[in-house]
Amino acid sequence: MTAENQVSVIGLGDMGSAIARRFVDRGYATTVWNRTASKAAPLADAGAATAATAAEAVAASPLTVLCLLDGTAVEHVLASLDGAAAGKVLVNVTSCSPAQARANGRWAHEHGAAYLDGKIMGDPPYVGTPNIMLSFSGANDVFTAHEATLKELGPITYLGEDAGAAAVEFLAQVAVSYELLIGFLHTLQLVQAEGFDVTEFAERAAASVAAHPPLLTTMANAVKNGDYAPDLGPLKVQAALMDDLIGHRECLGVDALRMREIKGLMDARIAAGHGDQGFSSLFAQLPKPTP
Amino acid sequence: MTAENQVSVIGLGDMGSAIARRFVDRGYATTVWNRTASKAAPLADAGAATAATAAEAVAASPLTVLCLLDGTAVEHVLASLDGAAAGKVLVNVTSCSPAQARANGRWAHEHGAAYLDGKIMGDPPYVGTPNIMLSFSGANDVFTAHEATLKELGPITYLGEDAGAAAVEFLAQVAVSYELLIGFLHTLQLVQAEGFDVTEFAERAAASVAAHPPLLTTMANAVKNGDYAPDLGPLKVQAALMDDLIGHRECLGVDALRMREIKGLMDARIAAGHGDQGFSSLFAQLPKPTP
Ligand SMILES: NC(=O)c1ccc[n+]([C@@H]2O[C@H](COP(=O)([O-])OP(=O)(O)OC[C@H]3O[C@@H](n4cnc5c(N)ncnc54)[C@H](OP(=O)(O)O)[C@@H]3O)[C@@H](O)[C@H]2O)c1
Ligand SMILES: NC(=O)c1ccc[n+]([C@@H]2O[C@H](COP(=O)([O-])OP(=O)(O)OC[C@H]3O[C@@H](n4cnc5c(N)ncnc54)[C@H](OP(=O)(O)O)[C@@H]3O)[C@@H](O)[C@H]2O)c1
Repeated sequence: MTAENQVSVIGLGDMGSAIARRFVDRGYATTVWNRTASKAAPLADAGAATAATAAEAVAASPLTVLCLLDGTAVEHVLASLDGAAAGKVLVNVTSCSPAQARANGRWAHEHGAAYLDGKIMGDPPYVGTPNIMLSFSGANDVFTAHEATLKELGPITYLGEDAGAAAVEFLAQVAVSYELLIGFLHTLQLVQAEGFDVTEFAERAAASVAAHPPLLTTMANAVKNGDYAPDLGPLKVQAALMDDLIGHRECLGVDALRMREIKGLMDARIAAGHGDQGFSSLFAQLPKPTP
Repeated sequence: MTAENQVSVIGLGDMGSAIARRFVDRGYATTVWNRTASKAAPLADAGAATAATAAEAVAASPLTVLCLLDGTAVEHVLASLDGAAAGKVLVNVTSCSPAQARANGRWAHEHGAAYLDGKIMGDPPYVGTPNIMLSFSGANDVFTAHEATLKELGPITYLGEDAGAAAVEFLAQVAVSYELLIGFLHTLQLVQAEGFDVTEFAERAAASVAAHPPLLTTMANAVKNGDYAPDLGPLKVQAALMDDLIGHRECLGVDALRMREIKGLMDARIAAGHGDQGFSSLFAQLPKPTP
C-alpha cells in the first residue's frame, strides 16, 4: 500500500458516502468517520476501515476529504483534531462561504497541515462520472500532488491559490442556477393559470434553455469589453414587449419582480441613448456594488 | 403562379425583412409593404413586389404575414385595411399580449378574414434555420392549410385554437430566459468584485446551464403531480448554504433579491415538515396567484 492510494473521508451523509464509496470502488485504502457511527456500516461492508474519531481518521491517511453539512460543522470537526492534522492534507468539499474556506486554510497553516478547498456541483449518484463538476483552490503544488486522487470524483477546475476561490465559484454558480429555477417555478404558475400543460411547456422551455449557453459567453464578453451588441435584439424592440409581459403576469397574480426590474433597466438604458444595444447592456445600468 | 406560393409581408424591420427575404429566397411570389417605404428597396432588388399601402399588400396574396413593432402598430395597420382583409388569411407574428392576439382574431372574424397568431423566439439571421423557434395558434384548419408556408420560417409548435395561446407561450418563454439572464448579469458583478475573469466564469456557467434542461422537465413533473423528490438535494441541505450565499452577495453589495426569497421559501417549506423534498417543492410555497 503506497501513500498515493490511501485516503480518509470524514462525513458520511449522502455526498460523503458517495465520495467514500467511489474511493473504495477505485481501490483506495479508505478510512471513514461519521458523527453518527451507524452511517459507516455500508462503507465498512464495502471494505472501508472505520475510525473511532475524526482525529483517528485524519491520522490514518496522508489526505482526508471532509464532507459535512456546512462550514460550522467543519469548524467543529477541525477543533477536535488536536495534533492529528500536522503533516497531512485536508481537502474540504463542504459547501461554505469564501470567508470560511479562507479561515480553514489559516487554521490548517497554523496546525502544520496543507489545505485545499473544493466545491461540488451535482448530485451524489453522479460522483465519479462526467455529470458532476468540481472546483478546487488552494496551494498549487498541493493540488498538483493530489490532482489524480481528486479527479476520481469527477471533472475538476482548479481556480488558483486563494482557498476561497472555489467557494466564490460555487456560490456564483448556485445563484445562476437558482435564478433560472425560481423564475421557472413562478412562470409555471402563469402556465397553469392559462390552462397549459406544465410538462409540455417545460419541454419547450428546456429546448430554449439548451440554446442559452453560447449567449452567456457572448454576454460576458460584452460585459468585459463594455461593447454591447444587440443580443436578443435591440433594447428598444425588447422594451416594447415589457408592459404586455408585466401586465399579463400581474393580471394573473403571478410574480413580476424581475420583469419590473428589467423594464426599469431597459427604460433607463434607452433614455441614456443606448436603445440599439442588447440585453447585456443592462449590466451597465445595474446599481454599482457598494461593499 | 399558384395561390400556395404567393405571400405578402407587412413590416420590414429587422425581423420582417428577414421573413420577406426568406420567402423570396424560397421562390414565393412575395409582396411587401413598410410604413417607411425606403426599407422595401433591398427586397425589391431581390425580386419582391412592393405595395403602395398595407391594404394593397393584403389584396395581393391569399396569406399576409404582419411583423411590426408591437400590438399597437398591428392595430393601426389593421384599421387601414378597409375591405381588403375579406377572404384572406392574416398571420400576425408581432410580439404582443394574449389579449391583443385575441382582439386581432375577433377583428379578423368581423372582417371576413382568417387569423393566426405566431410568436418568434430567436434572432432575425436565424429565420429559416433550426436555430429559431416559432409557436402558432388559431383555427386548426387554417393552420394546417398554411403550415408548409409557415414552416419556411423555422421549426413550429402549434398550440391550439385559442388565438392568444402563442402569445402566452412567448411571454412565458421570454420570462424564463430573462430570469436566467438578469440573474447572470447580477452574478457577473459578484464575479468581477472577486477578481475573477468574467468570460472564464461564463464558460463554466454555460456548461452548468447546459445541464439544466432535464431538470426543468423533472421539476415540472414534480409540480404537476405534487410529488417532490429531493432535486438538487434535500432542502435542509440546500438551505444550510443560503445564509452564506446571501451574506457573500450583500457583503459585496451585489443583488440578493431572489436569493432572499428562496431562503424564505426554503425555511417555510422545512418548517412545514418537508425538508426532505427538493427545490421543486418551493412551488408549493409560492403565494397563490390571485387574479
Ligand atoms: N446532497 C447533494 O445533492 C449535494 C450536492 C452538492 C454538494 N453537496 C454538499 O455536500 C455537503 C454534504 O451534503 P450531504 O448531502 O452529504 O448532507 P447530509 O446527507 O445532510 O450529511 C451531512 C453530514 O454532516 C454531518 N454533520 C453535520 N453537522 C455535524 C457536526 N456538527 N459535526 C460532525 N458532523 C456533522 C452529518 O453527520 P450525522 O450523520 O451525524 O448527522 C452528516 O455526515 C454539503 O455541504 C452539501 O452542500 C451536497
Ligand atoms: N429583432 C429580433 O431579434 C426579434 C426577435 C424575436 C421577435 N421579434 C419581434 O418581431 C417584431 C418586429 O421586430 P423587429 O426587430 O423587426 O423591429 P424593428 O426593426 O424595430 O421594426 C419595427 C417595424 O414596425 C413598423 N412599425 C412600427 N410602428 C408602426 C406603425 N404604427 N404603423 C406601421 N408600421 C409600424 C416599423 O416601420 P418603420 O420602418 O416605418 O418604422 C418597422 O417596420 C417585434 O414584435 C419583435 O418583438 C424580434
